[in-house]
Amino acid sequence: MTTRREFVCTAAAAVALPGLSAGASPDAKPLAEIPADKSIRVGALVFPRMDQIDLTGPFAVLSRLPNATVKLLWKSTEPVRDYRGLGLIPDAKMSDAGEVDLLVVPGGPGQEDLMEDEAVLKFIADRAAKAACVFSVCTGALVCGAAGLLKGRKATTHWASVQFLKYFGAAAVDKRVVVDGKLVSAAGLTAGIDGALQVAALLRGEVAAKAIQLDIQYAPEPPFDCGHPDKAPPEIVAKQRAAFRPLTDKRLATAKRVAAKLGIQVKD
Amino acid sequence: MTTRREFVCTAAAAVALPGLSAGASPDAKPLAEIPADKSIRVGALVFPRMDQIDLTGPFAVLSRLPNATVKLLWKSTEPVRDYRGLGLIPDAKMSDAGEVDLLVVPGGPGQEDLMEDEAVLKFIADRAAKAACVFSVCTGALVCGAAGLLKGRKATTHWASVQFLKYFGAAAVDKRVVVDGKLVSAAGLTAGIDGALQVAALLRGEVAAKAIQLDIQYAPEPPFDCGHPDKAPPEIVAKQRAAFRPLTDKRLATAKRVAAKLGIQVKD
Repeated sequence: MTTRREFVCTAAAAVALPGLSAGASPDAKPLAEIPADKSIRVGALVFPRMDQIDLTGPFAVLSRLPNATVKLLWKSTEPVRDYRGLGLIPDAKMSDAGEVDLLVVPGGPGQEDLMEDEAVLKFIADRAAKAACVFSVCTGALVCGAAGLLKGRKATTHWASVQFLKYFGAAAVDKRVVVDGKLVSAAGLTAGIDGALQVAALLRGEVAAKAIQLDIQYAPEPPFDCGHPDKAPPEIVAKQRAAFRPLTDKRLATAKRVAAKLGIQVKD
Repeated sequence: MTTRREFVCTAAAAVALPGLSAGASPDAKPLAEIPADKSIRVGALVFPRMDQIDLTGPFAVLSRLPNATVKLLWKSTEPVRDYRGLGLIPDAKMSDAGEVDLLVVPGGPGQEDLMEDEAVLKFIADRAAKAACVFSVCTGALVCGAAGLLKGRKATTHWASVQFLKYFGAAAVDKRVVVDGKLVSAAGLTAGIDGALQVAALLRGEVAAKAIQLDIQYAPEPPFDCGHPDKAPPEIVAKQRAAFRPLTDKRLATAKRVAAKLGIQVKD
C-alpha cells in the first residue's frame, strides 16, 4: 500500500461541519469482521453510463466471498449500458432491495446525474446507515458524497476528480484505497479490485481474501509504470487531463450546487 | 514482466505435429501495429458460465483503443449469466458477425462445453484465420486450443489449468502474458488487464496503451502477495487446488478427447 502524500486540501478537514465531527459520526466505528455463519448481502448500484469495470472488478472479488450474495441494483431491471457500451443486467430494483451489509457504489460519467438524483441519494443514505460497509469505486465516491456520506471523512476517487471531494466535506487522500471507519473508497477504475480485496479481508478475514486473490490470479504486472499521474509521462497526463476537461468542468458546477445543498463552504 | 521459468512440458513442443511447424504457421508472423486511420473491429466471445472479469477487464482497456469498436458475440443476443451470476448482454450473434481484427476469447467454467462445440470452434478458427490478433484470457486458451490454434505455439492460462495446454499441442509458459506471433494469451482472470494493455500497445502503439493505463488508473497495489501459487501460502494453494479439482478432473477427460480429435499424442 502506498504512502503517497495527502493532497493539499483547502477545505474539507478544516471546515467545521454543522452538527458533525468524525468522532461523532456513527459511521466512524471501525469495520469489523462478519461472523462466517452470517451471510453477507452485497448490493451494488448499476446505472447508465457507469464505468463497468468499477463494478465488474469488485464483483470478481466479492462474488467469491464465502457465504455472500451480490445483487446489482437500479431503478428498473431493464439492461443498462456502460458508457463504452457494455450491457449489464440489474438483478433487482433499488425499491425492492432490502437492507444490505455491503453497499458498492461504482462511478463513471453517468454518476454526474446521480449526484442530484434524490431517489438514488436517499437509497444510498438509507442503505448506508444500516450497512456494515460502504465501498465506493472511482467517482462513485462523489455520489456517496452527494448522499452526505463523506462529511468529515477521508476518501479517494479517480485521479482526475480528486479536487471535487472537498465539495462534499471530505479530505482527499492520494492513496489507492482509503479506509475510514466503515467507509472504504478506491481510486479510479481498476483500483476497485484492490479495494474489494481489502473489503474482503476486513469483512471475512485475510485467509478468505488471500484465497480469492489466488483464485483470480491477481499478481498484476502492468506493462508500463504509468497508472498514476505522478508516474505517467507529463505529456500523456496533460493530454488525458484535457480529454477529461469537458466532464470535469460540468462536474465542478454540479459539485458546487451539491455543496450548497449540503451546507458545505468551500474555498475555491 | 516476469521471467518465470517455463513449465516442464512433456509433450507439446516436442511433438511432431502433422503438417504444422511453428515456422510454417501463418499465425506465427509477428503482430504489427494497425495504422491509426484503420478501425479495429474487436469481437469478444461471451457465453454462459464464463468468468465475467476475463472479458470485462480487457473490455475496459480495448473499448478505449482509439478508432475501435468492441462487440460481444454469442449464439443469440439473449442475456448470458457468468458463473457467479453477473448478467451480460451479447451485442450480436456470432453468425451475424463479420470479420474481426482482434478476437477475444475469455474463459471460466463454461468454456468446458465450448471445447467440444463445433459451431463455436469453427467460428473461432474462421475469425482467427483473418484476424490480426487472437487474445485468450484465462481458460479461454483451452477453447482456442480446441479450435486448433495452439498447435506448436507457446501459451499460458489460469494456474490451475496449465497442465491442459499440452493436449492442444501447446508449450505452457508460466508467464502472466505470452505473445507468440499473433496469438496473445493471458493467465487467470485479472491477467486479462495486463494482456489487453500489451495487445493495445502492439496494435496501436505504446503511447496509446500508456494513455489507457493512466485513464483506468492501473497502478495496482494488491493487498497481499499471493496472486500466484508460487507466492501464496501453501495451505491456501492446496485448498484452492482441491476446490478446483471437480472442474479440472472433468477438464482432463475433455482435453483427452480433444487431443485425440486433433491427432495430438500426449504422454501423461
